Amino acid sequence: MKIAAFAGGVGGAKLADGLAQILSPEDLTVIVNTGDDFEHLGLFISPDLDTVCYTLAGLANSETGWGRAGETWNTITNVEKLGGPAWFRLGDQDIATHLERTRRLKEGQPLSQITRDFCKAWGIQHTVLPMTDSPVRTMVASDEGELAFQEYFVHRRCEPKVRGFRFDGVEAAEPAPGVHEALETVDVVVFCPSNPWVSIDPILQVVKEIRKPVVAVSPIIGGKTVKGPAAKMYAELGIEPSALAVANHYRTILQGFVLDNADSNIESVIKDLNIKTLVTDTLMNEPADRKRLADDVLHFIGSL
Amino acid sequence: MKIAAFAGGVGGAKLADGLAQILSPEDLTVIVNTGDDFEHLGLFISPDLDTVCYTLAGLANSETGWGRAGETWNTITNVEKLGGPAWFRLGDQDIATHLERTRRLKEGQPLSQITRDFCKAWGIQHTVLPMTDSPVRTMVASDEGELAFQEYFVHRRCEPKVRGFRFDGVEAAEPAPGVHEALETVDVVVFCPSNPWVSIDPILQVVKEIRKPVVAVSPIIGGKTVKGPAAKMYAELGIEPSALAVANHYRTILQGFVLDNADSNIESVIKDLNIKTLVTDTLMNEPADRKRLADDVLHFIGSL
Repeated sequence: MKIAAFAGGVGGAKLADGLAQILSPEDLTVIVNTGDDFEHLGLFISPDLDTVCYTLAGLANSETGWGRAGETWNTITNVEKLGGPAWFRLGDQDIATHLERTRRLKEGQPLSQITRDFCKAWGIQHTVLPMTDSPVRTMVASDEGELAFQEYFVHRRCEPKVRGFRFDGVEAAEPAPGVHEALETVDVVVFCPSNPWVSIDPILQVVKEIRKPVVAVSPIIGGKTVKGPAAKMYAELGIEPSALAVANHYRTILQGFVLDNADSNIESVIKDLNIKTLVTDTLMNEPADRKRLADDVLHFIGSL
Repeated sequence: MKIAAFAGGVGGAKLADGLAQILSPEDLTVIVNTGDDFEHLGLFISPDLDTVCYTLAGLANSETGWGRAGETWNTITNVEKLGGPAWFRLGDQDIATHLERTRRLKEGQPLSQITRDFCKAWGIQHTVLPMTDSPVRTMVASDEGELAFQEYFVHRRCEPKVRGFRFDGVEAAEPAPGVHEALETVDVVVFCPSNPWVSIDPILQVVKEIRKPVVAVSPIIGGKTVKGPAAKMYAELGIEPSALAVANHYRTILQGFVLDNADSNIESVIKDLNIKTLVTDTLMNEPADRKRLADDVLHFIGSL
């Protein structure tokens, strides 16, 4: 079974890792949101790409959910001493990724090629693609005006109330080389448990059309997100945060939906939307949970 | 006594530190070569400025002669793993200096202002000035063609034979704010034991004229340099490397010359050039040597 998985940060990376433990390299392509990318301290930073790659490579910091394991902080500590911006905590190992990515981008290399080279250096065998090589920047409309995503997400800690989202540059953005090819050849597209508003929607707007069956895994469990502001965003947009809200979010393109045992009470409502369902344990606290959930999802896909 | 000290890297930084231990902040201005500056990995790097500042701040790595004490190398190690250029060994703490400097330069702040702010953050009370806020780049004419300075110095380890030097941009370069003022108000200008060709000459070409007495400390002892390629450069340019060669280098502007006990045999030749001399121990192996030599130099100046 050939799968394309759409992923944002932590949750998406974990399921992608589970899928990679089961599927062979030629059967899994992970297509990653780049709407969170930004330039900071002169560095081009791709948080979701890095989280996915670090996770697949076994380099991720499992405690923080971002950045690298065994990280040190000598650079950012000293930037702070010099009065520089230190609100985005860049670790010393992580900075290497940004420095070398920035150097190559300035040389004219596309992000997809850089990602391919980095994956090779990190020993990642499955294909990881940025959604596009063009700059797309998620902008958050909020009660304090429009904010660049990382300004909202990290600097302001998601405190401003959201009113909507805009993906600056998305109209001109072509899918990265390999994205269309993957979407043509796979059997199913899996939306990993990532934020529908700011992780999956940007990818959808870039690829525009999906002609294959889509199965989504809910990032909302019992009305809450494991990590990140998805539930808060739904609430601030006037939608009760729930797995049902996520299923509704994708309703026009969804064949299958995976929700947590905690939400089994809404399974029938989702079935009524003419969407097939799998109710299982979707929490991925331990590394072994990733493979277990991926296995559940693949069996569910096989049954569709 | 008010002093302006011209300095390049390690040797210059050590004597500047000795002078700073004796003179009050208002009586010492250190004017630093920026011809070695270069852009690498997207970072603006000012090696001599950093060596002088780290040394004055007590942050310098006394073993390597460059970079910071207690340094870690997690960034550059990972840049190397990604196939990036790692021949210029940037430490994690050191990278903070370059990142924040680069950020500020791109914001339009002049190097002199950035240096002032960094000195304040590092607790340096004496004035440290880059020779200019304009880009001046030392180019090395060699038997392998013209090389940018750090390419010659670090990447090629001074292996190509030098034929001469050119300071790209020097014609358009104005002295940094404070340089002219310092040179007008000091009693004496001291050339620290730095490389005449590539550390002191660029400063001289920028300031153009010195109307105050000049005292130079020889960076060549017994025909050799403590560190760096000055002796090798003299030899490749067809000049026997010696303290005499250094005195001759500066002969048109020199009132006093400080040479090592090891070179006492050439004192009389230098006196014949109508240059006053001080023969003393000019090696600065231990921290205490810096103050001792500075004290000797200041007494010598007082006697002129």
